[in-house]
Amino acid sequence: MENNTLMTDFYELTMAQTYYYNRGLDEEAVFDLFYRKNPFEGGYSITAGLDNIINYIKNIKITDEDIAYLRSLNKFSDEFLEYLRNFKFTGNVYAIPDGTPVFPNEPVITVVANIIEAQIIETALLAAFNGASIVATSAGRIVETARTTPVLEFGARRAIGGIASAIEASKYAYLVGCASTSNTKAGQKYDIPVAGTMAHSLVSESESEYEAFLEYAKCNPNNCVLLVDTYDTLKSGIPNAIKVAKEYLIPNGYKLKGIRIDSGDLAYLSKMAREILDEEGLTDTAICLSNGLNANTITALKNQGAVVDSFGVGDNITAPNDRMGGVYKLVAIKKNNEFIPKIKVSNDIIKITNPGYKKVYRFYDKKTGYALGDVIAMNDEIIDEEEYKLVSHNEEWKTKLINNYVVKELQVPIFINGELVYEEPTLKEKREYCLNQMKTLYDEVKRLLNPHEYIVDLSVHANRIRKQLIMENQSKSTNEGYAKTYK
Amino acid sequence: MENNTLMTDFYELTMAQTYYYNRGLDEEAVFDLFYRKNPFEGGYSITAGLDNIINYIKNIKITDEDIAYLRSLNKFSDEFLEYLRNFKFTGNVYAIPDGTPVFPNEPVITVVANIIEAQIIETALLAAFNGASIVATSAGRIVETARTTPVLEFGARRAIGGIASAIEASKYAYLVGCASTSNTKAGQKYDIPVAGTMAHSLVSESESEYEAFLEYAKCNPNNCVLLVDTYDTLKSGIPNAIKVAKEYLIPNGYKLKGIRIDSGDLAYLSKMAREILDEEGLTDTAICLSNGLNANTITALKNQGAVVDSFGVGDNITAPNDRMGGVYKLVAIKKNNEFIPKIKVSNDIIKITNPGYKKVYRFYDKKTGYALGDVIAMNDEIIDEEEYKLVSHNEEWKTKLINNYVVKELQVPIFINGELVYEEPTLKEKREYCLNQMKTLYDEVKRLLNPHEYIVDLSVHANRIRKQLIMENQSKSTNEGYAKTYK
Repeated sequence: MENNTLMTDFYELTMAQTYYYNRGLDEEAVFDLFYRKNPFEGGYSITAGLDNIINYIKNIKITDEDIAYLRSLNKFSDEFLEYLRNFKFTGNVYAIPDGTPVFPNEPVITVVANIIEAQIIETALLAAFNGASIVATSAGRIVETARTTPVLEFGARRAIGGIASAIEASKYAYLVGCASTSNTKAGQKYDIPVAGTMAHSLVSESESEYEAFLEYAKCNPNNCVLLVDTYDTLKSGIPNAIKVAKEYLIPNGYKLKGIRIDSGDLAYLSKMAREILDEEGLTDTAICLSNGLNANTITALKNQGAVVDSFGVGDNITAPNDRMGGVYKLVAIKKNNEFIPKIKVSNDIIKITNPGYKKVYRFYDKKTGYALGDVIAMNDEIIDEEEYKLVSHNEEWKTKLINNYVVKELQVPIFINGELVYEEPTLKEKREYCLNQMKTLYDEVKRLLNPHEYIVDLSVHANRIRKQLIMENQSKSTNEGYAKTYK
Repeated sequence: MENNTLMTDFYELTMAQTYYYNRGLDEEAVFDLFYRKNPFEGGYSITAGLDNIINYIKNIKITDEDIAYLRSLNKFSDEFLEYLRNFKFTGNVYAIPDGTPVFPNEPVITVVANIIEAQIIETALLAAFNGASIVATSAGRIVETARTTPVLEFGARRAIGGIASAIEASKYAYLVGCASTSNTKAGQKYDIPVAGTMAHSLVSESESEYEAFLEYAKCNPNNCVLLVDTYDTLKSGIPNAIKVAKEYLIPNGYKLKGIRIDSGDLAYLSKMAREILDEEGLTDTAICLSNGLNANTITALKNQGAVVDSFGVGDNITAPNDRMGGVYKLVAIKKNNEFIPKIKVSNDIIKITNPGYKKVYRFYDKKTGYALGDVIAMNDEIIDEEEYKLVSHNEEWKTKLINNYVVKELQVPIFINGELVYEEPTLKEKREYCLNQMKTLYDEVKRLLNPHEYIVDLSVHANRIRKQLIMENQSKSTNEGYAKTYK
């Protein structure tokens, strides 16, 4: 496998050189990876990509070839290149496990490491998190909307990023609850059930639709799902499918497993299809619907009483129409064995970071299991009260007094002193975990349109530190540096 | 490298089994890969991904392990699995080279091959084309809009699809004209200039902004671009940058290469920044602007007189907000040495395919070099008249009589009888080709909003065949198959 350690923004390396000469190798820093806004105007996101982060960090190696390349750029000293030649990650990484619903501003990943190491891994961490979580979130919303109806992932051909990206997307789609993938390689590589139907080409290619169906049925009798919309779904496709079922499949001990409708008004056609199939006694022939489906069209189909046994979804899983804006911000520096909180201020309130080395906790109702809210607290705080007042992050007048809860720390240790300490669950275990986690969210938070805002609170202590640093930075920003200041 | 031959939709394999038993290995088919609508409501797209298609086809190999996996699914006969074990691509592929502006409905790629082979490679071809072309098109629109101002690609951390996808995206961004990438691995792997500035973390981490700038300048004196918006761009960032330039860089024979502004009103701040820098004699310090830029915001900045030497663009290159809807459709079957056109009809006009084994030609004005229109003709047609009447594809009343042109066939042979016959240009050659090709498009076609529709014509001959097949299929779609037909 190709080593991708250099998949890092060039400025990570020029900054690393700066740290190398000015901080030595002892300065430890804390970085938080978080995002500011849920994609799709949703109420939650689903974190993913930790597997690739583990993989990246575990395999860090700057080869001789890499060093020669970096040297050729004439931007690095020999001494610093020598340091890079032996570069390893020796710090700590804490992360919320893949498949967990997460919310804006909470640290999904926290890195505590020598500042050079923390900086060099930034780009890969962000790419892995952003690239995977947008797929997981998009697919998760679709699975959630489809509820008990299985979602079959058909997205390989549309994956943004192409072939390698498609295989990864299938994995994350399955992780959040898709029932199967059409991508044979993903099925093989990640042990995901593979499923598929047939394409229009088989029908176009044949002398007649009936003949195409019959040939397909004969070669795939155990797995016969026929695509019925090549010519005319109701007048031609379904009657031909029924004919093949009655004349070939049923007499030979098989059945017509399903039909797929990929164009036209899916609500109307599915209802008519069910009626016709039932009338002909094919009550156990399933109906699969596809055609650019997303969470909104699935909702509309359900509202209109579409009769459907599975949804085939492609583009909106592997080529999601939004993005995960994950960022990675310095939040503390270790000095004299103490973590000094650092902040990034901005005129834009949403861009002001939560300073300090922190932890994130989730409160679950002891009785119902529902998630009540999250609190971001300082690393050394202990959240074990019987009662807790959650305060909304940017709107302090929104509070919620809770009790009778179980509180759980969300991040778990992944690397400690550069050693992988996390036992990664299997993909199937992650999938089960994710589906269970999704059940802890109120439907109101999962609503597609105008979801209820899940509370993510800063603890009183964390909030105090934040306010103090904002004040300090206001004074820092003026009359500093060059004598002459400008309007 | 991992072999990804099985990155194919499962139905390609179940259909292949059907073809195997019913057509034998002799039936040759023609498939066109095309898309129906330009992304971003644009007037053109830029094709890309051919390199990965070549790579996929060249390395086709279904391993013993793959066969064992497929066998475990209990859907394939031993005989068919034996055929797959020796599976190779032995057909022909013709494609429009990467970096060419292309338009809806024209065959970007045409595959002429045994139908099983043509079908099995479908998914990878589509994934490679769709995944790369959406990035190329998005980046190309940004480069085009920025015109002479260089666009620096900063997208690694946001790439949909993660780490592997980011490296590919940087390549395609460079292919369409970006000046550099921030992705060190992409720079190394594809010989792309790497560039970067610095991050807010360096400033947040330091005692003061001035100190951070000074340290960075000392370690990167040849390459000193300072990020000036951590606290306050005009009151703090720029004054501190100037101080470092005057007190350290200039006295030591270096210069302040540039500043980057990443937040706030970029138009206003850039104008003020230029004024201040010039006033202080730093007339050759460049200004780089970034912050979620896309083609529209770049246009707005230009219209407002932003003073800018380069744009840094991330998300909108590696996580484009639209998708390439490329499809792959059967258009002909070879029988008795003759290609029989096949069509896929649909109630949705835009979804009716152009049947037949075809070629695509582009007419360039002999005098100006501008592209006048494309014509899709049958493979055996010869387009060499002195005068040609272009007819708009779906709106036949739109015609355009042209003469004094140079006509060029757009597709070139890539594989012939399974052998790679295409000499792939280097990335730099592709980039130059793309930039030259973009110059052949009228500005009106490249307009971001309501672009002029570039004419893609069907030749009279090709149009006649299409109409005839539509008629034939209308009769085919009724009263066929099962006796009872439904409303």
